[in-house]
Amino acid sequence: MRVYNFAAGPAVLPEEVLKRAQNELLEHGNDGMSVMEMSHRSKMYEAVITAAEQSLRRLMSIPDSYRVLFLQGGASLQFAMVPMNLMKNGKADYVVTGAFAKKAAEEAAKYGEARVVASGKAGNFTQIPALTPDMFDQGASYAHITTNNTIFGTRYTKLPDTGSVPLVADLSSNILSSADETLDITRFGLVYAGAQKNIGPAGLTLVIAKDELLTGPIAPYVPSMMDYRLMADNDSMYNTPPTYAIYMAGLVFEYLEGIGGLKAMQKRNEEKAGLLYDYLDETAFYKGTAAKDSRSLMNVTFVLPGDELTAKFVKEAAAAGFVNLKGHRSVGGIRASIYNAMPAEGVQALIDFMKKFETANK
Amino acid sequence: MRVYNFAAGPAVLPEEVLKRAQNELLEHGNDGMSVMEMSHRSKMYEAVITAAEQSLRRLMSIPDSYRVLFLQGGASLQFAMVPMNLMKNGKADYVVTGAFAKKAAEEAAKYGEARVVASGKAGNFTQIPALTPDMFDQGASYAHITTNNTIFGTRYTKLPDTGSVPLVADLSSNILSSADETLDITRFGLVYAGAQKNIGPAGLTLVIAKDELLTGPIAPYVPSMMDYRLMADNDSMYNTPPTYAIYMAGLVFEYLEGIGGLKAMQKRNEEKAGLLYDYLDETAFYKGTAAKDSRSLMNVTFVLPGDELTAKFVKEAAAAGFVNLKGHRSVGGIRASIYNAMPAEGVQALIDFMKKFETANK
Repeated sequence: MRVYNFAAGPAVLPEEVLKRAQNELLEHGNDGMSVMEMSHRSKMYEAVITAAEQSLRRLMSIPDSYRVLFLQGGASLQFAMVPMNLMKNGKADYVVTGAFAKKAAEEAAKYGEARVVASGKAGNFTQIPALTPDMFDQGASYAHITTNNTIFGTRYTKLPDTGSVPLVADLSSNILSSADETLDITRFGLVYAGAQKNIGPAGLTLVIAKDELLTGPIAPYVPSMMDYRLMADNDSMYNTPPTYAIYMAGLVFEYLEGIGGLKAMQKRNEEKAGLLYDYLDETAFYKGTAAKDSRSLMNVTFVLPGDELTAKFVKEAAAAGFVNLKGHRSVGGIRASIYNAMPAEGVQALIDFMKKFETANK
Repeated sequence: MRVYNFAAGPAVLPEEVLKRAQNELLEHGNDGMSVMEMSHRSKMYEAVITAAEQSLRRLMSIPDSYRVLFLQGGASLQFAMVPMNLMKNGKADYVVTGAFAKKAAEEAAKYGEARVVASGKAGNFTQIPALTPDMFDQGASYAHITTNNTIFGTRYTKLPDTGSVPLVADLSSNILSSADETLDITRFGLVYAGAQKNIGPAGLTLVIAKDELLTGPIAPYVPSMMDYRLMADNDSMYNTPPTYAIYMAGLVFEYLEGIGGLKAMQKRNEEKAGLLYDYLDETAFYKGTAAKDSRSLMNVTFVLPGDELTAKFVKEAAAAGFVNLKGHRSVGGIRASIYNAMPAEGVQALIDFMKKFETANK
């Protein structure tokens, strides 16, 4: 029996996507082979990757002036690839709203001045800092944000105004989760996302960038595989891309189109997260950790009265079929990651469990 | 119906591995979820990656003094990662036996002196050049070879003696194909391989390296994700690894152990390739292009009399269920890639087709 999986990533995938992948695993359509076995240069695979890109473009309304790249290495490799390619002026602005935002800034500092515009550290990253236009350096090559902070359960509910400086963002943990302006691609110069939350299996990294930003010169030490221009000019096929992960992503995109696109997904996500936050606001037993104005729709973080009860909660929840609820090792507490593919029934069932646990333990 | 897929990579996978993956796609064992959905930090996934590594260690008799890393980016990223980490003396030797060997040397030249020890270019890469110990610079940080050349259908049948200089090799297209000394890990300082030929799906890169070689200092511009030491110290989990591709690789390793390990695989491969080369030596219609002393067991390259017949052959073969036989765009002709997972019956059926085609067209 399938459990309710609240993992922060890799994470739950839509069951109908998994079923389709299962049906097609030995033979994809009339192609006579698994997608895993297709030459990336074959016509049959070209149909797979093209369909994936077109579906994503429709979902996110990506203009032709933006390139879509299917890369590898996760957001962590992007932490270096972004400054290697885009930090033309030798400096960039970083907003530090969590552990990965901090890592991004630290990695960027290898390639130039990575100035921390604002940090949520003093408040233990429970809130997105207030950002005003004057805080951004108009001489910076770009300004970098992390739209959703997986570990701390926070997200931007509006984008900062960075003037004429291109906004670059790590969308790993909330890409495709809503149709609102915080994920409007035309507001960004470049975005990237590891696939393993809302896109598909780990091992695929999506980059969507304004074509005009992907220009040389870049430093001579930049590996070919980290040159955006080269990747774009080769349509993500400079070498063999992660072909199967791209196929899976395509199935997820198609599924999202099928349920009505990102507006429908946003509605579902707001309802799902709303159920959980409403309950957290009602009860005194559990306590949400993110500031109300910064609450993530994807990762809901809360604490119980004491470490002993927390451990007991995690254990009993797992036995009841609610797994991976333990908060990140760096913060403790509980984190329920409720990405796109987590059904509302899963969230409701978790709340029912939480109520029972509260009654039994308060 | 499944076809016989002679693609050079991504390539055919063992049918029983695909069937097992299909069975486990929605629920892996009693884990209640797909492997694609497992947190990489969970105990259930730890069991998956550990089993994969242990199986590989048994198959290749990898000593404890070597680390096994599961990375991303393909051999092309290794072309930069190797010199970034290992070129401590500012110079390394490269043997250029084909297109990818050349790319490796060119990428290395970004990071120091990448001296071409020998090149098969004059002979259009149809033969591995003779290599004597005096050809290698004892002051070089390492010497790099490509054990099998996918495009040209050649392979080393013995390893060069590089004295005290560590041998580094791209094993992408013949790893796990034999138990002979050319793939004996103790002969190498570091080897790497893209997974998409003999290991599993594209998107996984295997690195096996002597632990003592993975030391600093490395240049400040090296991305964290390209620091071997950091990857090793984090057991390939500095960030999310390509979890599903690693699982698939583990299934392939288990399959190989099940058929009797690499000695049994070598016997099968020698028999399979032997069938095809014997026929090529008999007929005057088809002509093998690789020198006899350098013939690959994995990629069998040959030509027909003229481009028109070649095109006709590719077309009629595909219609008969033998696909992806067209030679690489850079060399033309025919290439039958017969990796580990290609059954002997597939090779025999291809030969039968070739005989019929010869009779009809000579």
